[in-house]
Amino acid sequence: MANSFIGKSLPRTDALAKVTGKAKYTGDFIARNMLVGKILRSPYAHAKVKNIDVTKAKALPGVEAVLTYRDVPQNVYATAGHPYSLDPKHRDVADKTILTAKARFVGDEIAAVVAVDETTAVRALKLIEVEYEIMEPVLSPEAALAEGAPLVHEERGSNIVSSAGYQIGDIDKVLQTADYIFDDEMETGIVQHCAMENHVSYAYVDDDGRVVIVTSTQIPHICRRIVGQALGIPWGKVRIIKPYVGGGFGSKQDVCLEPLNAVMTMAVGGRPVKLELSREENMIGTRTRHAVKIKIKTGVSKNGKLLGIKIDAVSNTGAYASHGHSIMMAGGAKFKYLYVFEAIKYSPCTVYTNLPVAGAMRAYGSPQIVFALESHLDNVARKLNIDPLELRWKNFNKEGYLDPITGNKILSCGIKECVQRGKEFLNWDEKKALFAKENEHEKNRCRGVGIACFSYGTGTYPAGLEVAGARIALNQDGSVQLLAGATEIGQGSDTVFTQMVAETIGIPANMVHMISTQDTDVSPYDPGSFASRQTYVTGMAIKKASLEIKDKILKVAQKMTDQPAAALDIKNANIVDRQSDMIIMPLSQVALQSFYDPHASSPITSDVSHNARVNAISFGVTFAEVEVDIKTGQVEVKEIINVHDSGKIINRQLAEGQVHGGVSMALGYALSEQMLFEEKTGRLLNNNFLDYKLPTILDTPDISVDFVETDEPTGPYGNKSLGEPPTISPAPAIRNAILDATGVAFNRIPIRPQYAFEEFKAAGLI
Amino acid sequence: MANSFIGKSLPRTDALAKVTGKAKYTGDFIARNMLVGKILRSPYAHAKVKNIDVTKAKALPGVEAVLTYRDVPQNVYATAGHPYSLDPKHRDVADKTILTAKARFVGDEIAAVVAVDETTAVRALKLIEVEYEIMEPVLSPEAALAEGAPLVHEERGSNIVSSAGYQIGDIDKVLQTADYIFDDEMETGIVQHCAMENHVSYAYVDDDGRVVIVTSTQIPHICRRIVGQALGIPWGKVRIIKPYVGGGFGSKQDVCLEPLNAVMTMAVGGRPVKLELSREENMIGTRTRHAVKIKIKTGVSKNGKLLGIKIDAVSNTGAYASHGHSIMMAGGAKFKYLYVFEAIKYSPCTVYTNLPVAGAMRAYGSPQIVFALESHLDNVARKLNIDPLELRWKNFNKEGYLDPITGNKILSCGIKECVQRGKEFLNWDEKKALFAKENEHEKNRCRGVGIACFSYGTGTYPAGLEVAGARIALNQDGSVQLLAGATEIGQGSDTVFTQMVAETIGIPANMVHMISTQDTDVSPYDPGSFASRQTYVTGMAIKKASLEIKDKILKVAQKMTDQPAAALDIKNANIVDRQSDMIIMPLSQVALQSFYDPHASSPITSDVSHNARVNAISFGVTFAEVEVDIKTGQVEVKEIINVHDSGKIINRQLAEGQVHGGVSMALGYALSEQMLFEEKTGRLLNNNFLDYKLPTILDTPDISVDFVETDEPTGPYGNKSLGEPPTISPAPAIRNAILDATGVAFNRIPIRPQYAFEEFKAAGLI
Repeated sequence: MANSFIGKSLPRTDALAKVTGKAKYTGDFIARNMLVGKILRSPYAHAKVKNIDVTKAKALPGVEAVLTYRDVPQNVYATAGHPYSLDPKHRDVADKTILTAKARFVGDEIAAVVAVDETTAVRALKLIEVEYEIMEPVLSPEAALAEGAPLVHEERGSNIVSSAGYQIGDIDKVLQTADYIFDDEMETGIVQHCAMENHVSYAYVDDDGRVVIVTSTQIPHICRRIVGQALGIPWGKVRIIKPYVGGGFGSKQDVCLEPLNAVMTMAVGGRPVKLELSREENMIGTRTRHAVKIKIKTGVSKNGKLLGIKIDAVSNTGAYASHGHSIMMAGGAKFKYLYVFEAIKYSPCTVYTNLPVAGAMRAYGSPQIVFALESHLDNVARKLNIDPLELRWKNFNKEGYLDPITGNKILSCGIKECVQRGKEFLNWDEKKALFAKENEHEKNRCRGVGIACFSYGTGTYPAGLEVAGARIALNQDGSVQLLAGATEIGQGSDTVFTQMVAETIGIPANMVHMISTQDTDVSPYDPGSFASRQTYVTGMAIKKASLEIKDKILKVAQKMTDQPAAALDIKNANIVDRQSDMIIMPLSQVALQSFYDPHASSPITSDVSHNARVNAISFGVTFAEVEVDIKTGQVEVKEIINVHDSGKIINRQLAEGQVHGGVSMALGYALSEQMLFEEKTGRLLNNNFLDYKLPTILDTPDISVDFVETDEPTGPYGNKSLGEPPTISPAPAIRNAILDATGVAFNRIPIRPQYAFEEFKAAGLI
Repeated sequence: MANSFIGKSLPRTDALAKVTGKAKYTGDFIARNMLVGKILRSPYAHAKVKNIDVTKAKALPGVEAVLTYRDVPQNVYATAGHPYSLDPKHRDVADKTILTAKARFVGDEIAAVVAVDETTAVRALKLIEVEYEIMEPVLSPEAALAEGAPLVHEERGSNIVSSAGYQIGDIDKVLQTADYIFDDEMETGIVQHCAMENHVSYAYVDDDGRVVIVTSTQIPHICRRIVGQALGIPWGKVRIIKPYVGGGFGSKQDVCLEPLNAVMTMAVGGRPVKLELSREENMIGTRTRHAVKIKIKTGVSKNGKLLGIKIDAVSNTGAYASHGHSIMMAGGAKFKYLYVFEAIKYSPCTVYTNLPVAGAMRAYGSPQIVFALESHLDNVARKLNIDPLELRWKNFNKEGYLDPITGNKILSCGIKECVQRGKEFLNWDEKKALFAKENEHEKNRCRGVGIACFSYGTGTYPAGLEVAGARIALNQDGSVQLLAGATEIGQGSDTVFTQMVAETIGIPANMVHMISTQDTDVSPYDPGSFASRQTYVTGMAIKKASLEIKDKILKVAQKMTDQPAAALDIKNANIVDRQSDMIIMPLSQVALQSFYDPHASSPITSDVSHNARVNAISFGVTFAEVEVDIKTGQVEVKEIINVHDSGKIINRQLAEGQVHGGVSMALGYALSEQMLFEEKTGRLLNNNFLDYKLPTILDTPDISVDFVETDEPTGPYGNKSLGEPPTISPAPAIRNAILDATGVAFNRIPIRPQYAFEEFKAAGLI
């Protein structure tokens, strides 16, 4: 196959639409007389609604409906965006109702208003009179796990969501054989996705009596199911439409607005109701990344060989389970491909607290676990007095490794070449030596370099079901319509799907008309965009559908030419002789024949689904160079490079974009971003972008990127995950660079100036 | 198969949506800042644009674009809604450009304006200065065919569109053997479809740079192709969306607005532009039914056996060919199944004139030809002094007849039973005798009864390509999404498709979610709604898709139960034992398994296309009773019944609705409707519903309906055409009843009071 599109930096198919404003997002749609929905949120972290009086709110002119838990279905449902499981034990924790009579965090949804405009809706919210019975909140995992702690969900009997883990080998035995045992305690903060587009949806009841929700979601098909479950109506009575989406990062892999939006429209006779969160509401009312406290213990041999690892992790999931313990399970499952261990014991525990709900966020548990692991390894290297790069090098895993738990095998592994390239890029050896020397005298601005690695999966198999659908229809001019259930949310999947179709069929990319809007009425089934699954799992469906189209085209061409289909090929929208590449006829001629042959008309389409039962392991490394201002605690990242083994790169420019975004996200995670809560009340102190320190472009150094293109045999085009990985290793690499620069081993992120200053003081640097 | 839905009067699936106003038509859609397009129409029937100055129009504030033929592509295209033909000789006549420099009728499209609102657009039209070179118009076929007549299309070299006909047997020889030869000349008027919804569309350029046109059309996929041809762009770059449509009757089987609407949006940077015709514009600017002058000659044996028939017909197609000669070909092809003739010679001629464009209209040529034939037969019966019913009875065709031209065979024929039923309903014999007796004395209000029959085809095969696509997807709750390319335009096709799916799969009708909007981006290919093809041709695709879904469901059920698929069936959304009907499990359980089996997930869909290569002949009869006021020329229809052999009736209530509508249309055709043109200028005199006499409900008698349900073996459910047939035979039946009442043999419709009065006077009745 001529490799014309795979590996080429095709400009984004939606670039022009997005820069010209033609691309329509949920908030861009208007309907005649669209009503506005608003949510009344609890001011208390833990409280029961003793009494609620909506009389005044209802009496306000322009108010169309006021809803409390008494007015909406009280089905208990799970909001996490996973495919449904046939096995009840495997399903997400159902602990949420559409509106609640018991507030479990500051921001919990107590009541809602539908009004003719936003001003009226906001005024009506203020007229709702709620009498609360205030309860003692549990605002940390420690408090939640304490004997006799108040229960966030009484009916569950415990604040523990789950404490399932896994064990490989006999960890105690292995640790006994180790020459050294090292211990650390690490901790990550609560951050938010901060997608440019807040959560927004609008809903109406259609002409068929079905609920239609247009929403900024990563998971339209899953959303359909969850709305059906929350409302207690057949899932087929729900239709979800996803326009362009301005980022999700996992936050929109949860069903936050849609069930409430559905009952809002149903309360007003099916008229359209828009439910749009402000940035402030988005910060508390959607999802966050789990804060995790991790105890890590390794047994290491004299010569620096890692023998066994024991991880105990406590994860703070907030007021509702959402993705809950799945995050910890995934974080624990994915790091183990990176290094060879004789034994692993992984003991996570996910705990409810009266804080905003944590859910899926880019890399799903790995940023926390890998931060702990890679920070710990630098501590180990320092104690063993060997180069941290060398320690890792000695222990890297390789092709052929079989995961004894999942049966999953590493089939491509470029981690060593990634490290090699990054090392060369940064001049690791030279800089390490130079900075060590410098730092002997320099006590104000210290420089250092750090490294951190990661391994990651592609998709959710075998933990989760992996299925993707694609439908292609040949047009009369030889162009095709491509309909996928997978969702473009800004990451560029529509563009790479376009490349895959163009490549596989043999037509120019501008002859692939990608339908970017997913609509559960017509889009093939696909759970959506998460787990870095789309180019891999959906890619398999796209390839399958394209091959089927090509096959059907060549069969028609065969009838027209009396040449065996195998003697023909398609190149640049022409039917060509496979051997000589001579053009036999334009593809459009075959297309016309397929439509308009009076006795054999059969327009060419393919409609496939692919059930992936493989999972490719991707790898990568971050090298960072920092300069630390000891007196202010300010850390400046001077250089940072991510080198990824994501298999074959489908579109280098987009791939680089993914890495830029992921690293930039990790910079905030490492150094500045943190949701801060008032200690006693659990109220979020920094619910806006002035106080929540999301890095701006001015805070962001040049981010360098490189790829080691292994050829992953299970990937449809040799590719494996890239969406989430870039955000995993930068935080520990920066932390390790700070250690290198200052000798101070931080065990917590974010390393904000105040925290750094305190640590430097404690270490006697100031 | 349990017959649960076929033959049941399921309420229209869109009934609630339509009566509550939830159903959205093209005009109901709004876009932010939608611009308005308006057309400048020629005031002259035949004129060249010598000079056109748009300076003042362009300068008017609020005007965004002014277009003339110089600004738009000048590709010559055909507007008729037929599937494209691979054979250039078989294609429709291409004689239209988007805007013209030569006006060919009063109303021809000279220029266009796009402005911020309608008022501004209308003012701008008045500011366009056009200097015309006025030419002599040809306003009748006689004038057009005269030696040296001005040519409507100079480049075609003649005003004749085509004069192709056909011959079966040796007509001259057969006529020589006849005992009697009868001659008549008949004439039908120009009428308009008068759909409730005028032609309307709006267009914009989408985020992918493609032209999107939302339009009230019967033929979205064909419209896409024609817009592509008119603009000279690849067809895949055009997207057509069809919302609910408020009637078409053939007028919207033509592409009237869409190419101009496309260039309008392209002229303003792709912003949305609405192009909506007023009723007055719709009357001249869309399509009409061809006026036809028909010479008919039959040879008849002494005992009333029809031996041979010769028809010469001249059809007035107006200024552009549109469906042109196809109408005459179809009208000539479809009557020949009704009676046995030894020889037929059919010689039609379709002629251009400088009048508004005639196109497809319900029954496509048959109302004209059958009016002539059936009126002529009553003249013959009268001359032979036999009962006109008896004359027909002697000559009816029957099952087994093979059309020597097409190879098409009559496989079901209920005409005799239709006539029998209608005869009984009307008390034909008694009334005929009674009225004859009455009329001997009564000279003011005469009563009479009339009969007329017809035969008709189903779909266009073999003259045209017949293909239809359907896609069904099983939802998790066991309900299905049904996506068809066929268009609901008010006739009820979505409802009967729903019944077909429910019947064939074995689920309740409310579990079939019909997607009523067609969108060329996602809807399967289907040329659209015309030729009474949908329940028949699309029905085959729907059945095929449903059977495929059922088969796939049962295969999954087989895996779940280890029962042979053949031992299982689906009834009322349950998997049942085929023999005992015992419920094994709900269908939803199989659906869930198909989606969520982690190792065999494969959501169940079917995506089929059906290429029909059969054409079923339907039959029917109208019996009418009239009372004629001789002095005023007023005809009152006292009773009218249509009895149809349309094979199995899928939905009796909807079928009756079709007949009511068709008969009501024919009442206007027979008695009142006619587009009247100023003799010298060709200007339409009655371009509105005050002056154009469309019958209102007060003018409409109770319309009776009955069906003779033959079982058509080629029909997917035993069914054959019903959409157009009801409108064919009422006009001649009424005309024959007037003859019976008054002895005056009208040879022209409409029989308006003035015309009737003149004829009665000439006949000495006044």
